[in-house]
Amino acid sequence: MEVENKQIIFKGFIQGMPKETDMELKIGNKIKLKAPEESGAFIVKNLYLSCDPYMRGRMRHFHGSYIPPFVPGSVIEGFGVSRVLDSDNPNFKPGDLVSGFTGWEEYSLIQKTVQLRKIQQDDIPLSYHVGLLGMPGFTAYVGFYEVCTPKKGDYVFVSAASGAVAQLVGQLAKLHGCYVVGSAGTSQKVDLLKNKLGFNEAFNYKEEPDLDAALKRYFPQGIDIYFDNVGGAMLEAALLNMRIHGRIAVCGMVSQNSVSDPQGTRNLFNLISRRIKMEGFLQSDYLHLYPRFLEDVISFYKEGKIVYIEDMNEGLESAPAAFVGLFSGKNVGKQVICVARE
Amino acid sequence: MEVENKQIIFKGFIQGMPKETDMELKIGNKIKLKAPEESGAFIVKNLYLSCDPYMRGRMRHFHGSYIPPFVPGSVIEGFGVSRVLDSDNPNFKPGDLVSGFTGWEEYSLIQKTVQLRKIQQDDIPLSYHVGLLGMPGFTAYVGFYEVCTPKKGDYVFVSAASGAVAQLVGQLAKLHGCYVVGSAGTSQKVDLLKNKLGFNEAFNYKEEPDLDAALKRYFPQGIDIYFDNVGGAMLEAALLNMRIHGRIAVCGMVSQNSVSDPQGTRNLFNLISRRIKMEGFLQSDYLHLYPRFLEDVISFYKEGKIVYIEDMNEGLESAPAAFVGLFSGKNVGKQVICVARE
Repeated sequence: MEVENKQIIFKGFIQGMPKETDMELKIGNKIKLKAPEESGAFIVKNLYLSCDPYMRGRMRHFHGSYIPPFVPGSVIEGFGVSRVLDSDNPNFKPGDLVSGFTGWEEYSLIQKTVQLRKIQQDDIPLSYHVGLLGMPGFTAYVGFYEVCTPKKGDYVFVSAASGAVAQLVGQLAKLHGCYVVGSAGTSQKVDLLKNKLGFNEAFNYKEEPDLDAALKRYFPQGIDIYFDNVGGAMLEAALLNMRIHGRIAVCGMVSQNSVSDPQGTRNLFNLISRRIKMEGFLQSDYLHLYPRFLEDVISFYKEGKIVYIEDMNEGLESAPAAFVGLFSGKNVGKQVICVARE
Repeated sequence: MEVENKQIIFKGFIQGMPKETDMELKIGNKIKLKAPEESGAFIVKNLYLSCDPYMRGRMRHFHGSYIPPFVPGSVIEGFGVSRVLDSDNPNFKPGDLVSGFTGWEEYSLIQKTVQLRKIQQDDIPLSYHVGLLGMPGFTAYVGFYEVCTPKKGDYVFVSAASGAVAQLVGQLAKLHGCYVVGSAGTSQKVDLLKNKLGFNEAFNYKEEPDLDAALKRYFPQGIDIYFDNVGGAMLEAALLNMRIHGRIAVCGMVSQNSVSDPQGTRNLFNLISRRIKMEGFLQSDYLHLYPRFLEDVISFYKEGKIVYIEDMNEGLESAPAAFVGLFSGKNVGKQVICVARE
């Protein structure tokens, strides 16, 4: 059986911020819903696709990163939740739900099964498997527990705090007995942080002419842990407010253009005087902790101790705009594309 | 008995680089060579004084650092080796040799005994107690072993490599089975690194138009450990050449003006993609390791496994120029002032 397969194609390498026109919707390609014999591959129907900031790095012509660039003219690759339709792989059977790398298209032939997980469906929303229970949630979990070495009572600051990763970091920190303040870019997000995600305090960084002063107001005692998702000016302000032996987990630098910051961080001297550990990390180095993560976070969720906010766009066509929106903070919570509800 | 006491006075707070005129030689002050009764203090004759880059920070009007600023109009304070002349403190007797904080003057009244050590004199040069066996040596020891978490076979890069701290870092790294390359600012220093200090390779950064290219030449496999004494452009170049899970010990930023770098470090994104740990540290957080340090380094020295290079200036009068010279790399090895040979 051959069907039409709508796809989002990566047009060519970019510099700076991604634009919608860097991607295009392609209609008319056909795909056979049958896995080639002896391929070990399988065919899936994509249900939910994940828009993640790290994907910007794959749009650049740069091979020195931890993940290779996209191939111009090919379908965009990203995390997704999919249903197996046909399989030549004994580990994945028709009807199985999987989460892992797939294509930005209606149907995909999956050949790489690295970091691909079978989903045991229960009362957790399926789309959460690319968010709370997927790469962003796991990033929050290992970043907070393994990189930040938190202690009860620590003062924790999280930037881009309502985002896919940070909203969980803040909630884990609260559960750990920390005092948590988040920054975000709209009053709606600030409200969510305080009233839905349980942060102690939150502020709109766009309304703060002086970020250093804002942090001094929210952290008169200083910051023990800064979970950095943005880099740039906020990192500089945090460096001025870290406590001695503070920890900075460098998770993302969404304010920067992925490789270099035209401005630069000018006050790294504080690393010495305050004896700060600043560490970049990737969740993929901690995959041995994935089972424990799933167990912990599923428990927290089912006990009502954590919530998760998604920004769901409908239809594959909406993916380019949703992805581009990540870099101006248009999304409220984890950005997901619903390709099909089954 | 009252004697004349030549002193180096701190004239007033500075901005930017220190100049000789920020200090002045004061002649004519008298001092009684008798410790006040019931003071717990003692009088020393200063033999060797240490010129250390961190002292620049104390010349600034900034109270947020780990050590308070100097007091304008007062004698400069620094590490030194001194002989006790008279004492009201039962732990320090006339004739004792001590190393620790003292004044830039011929005789000092010592009231604070924090981090003050009594020296057991043996065949190690007395002046080494402000270098190899003093704060710089201890900084090298804890920075290398505790902050860099070295492994045999690691590729180690050290900047300002013939300096008071770094010359020992390189030698400890060699003893640990690492491959060590140092950068310095003159061909004389490069020669010392290769032929006296036993570095595998060394280069003159002033002759390298492209520091990234230089590091790629010396570290085709990349850098596991960067022991950073300079910050600035060399840090940026190192970030481009770190291996995955590399460690950067931030010991000093002599290229910067102590607080902010007008240029800024523009490629911190590499911390994430390469999963780098970058940590600032101060030796004073590790004082519990001082006895082990002394034991280890004295053994290494006596067994001929390490050497130490000093740049000795004669006379208290030479101190301001020697200190200022640190920031243009005028010193070759650890900068010491000989005030008196006993």
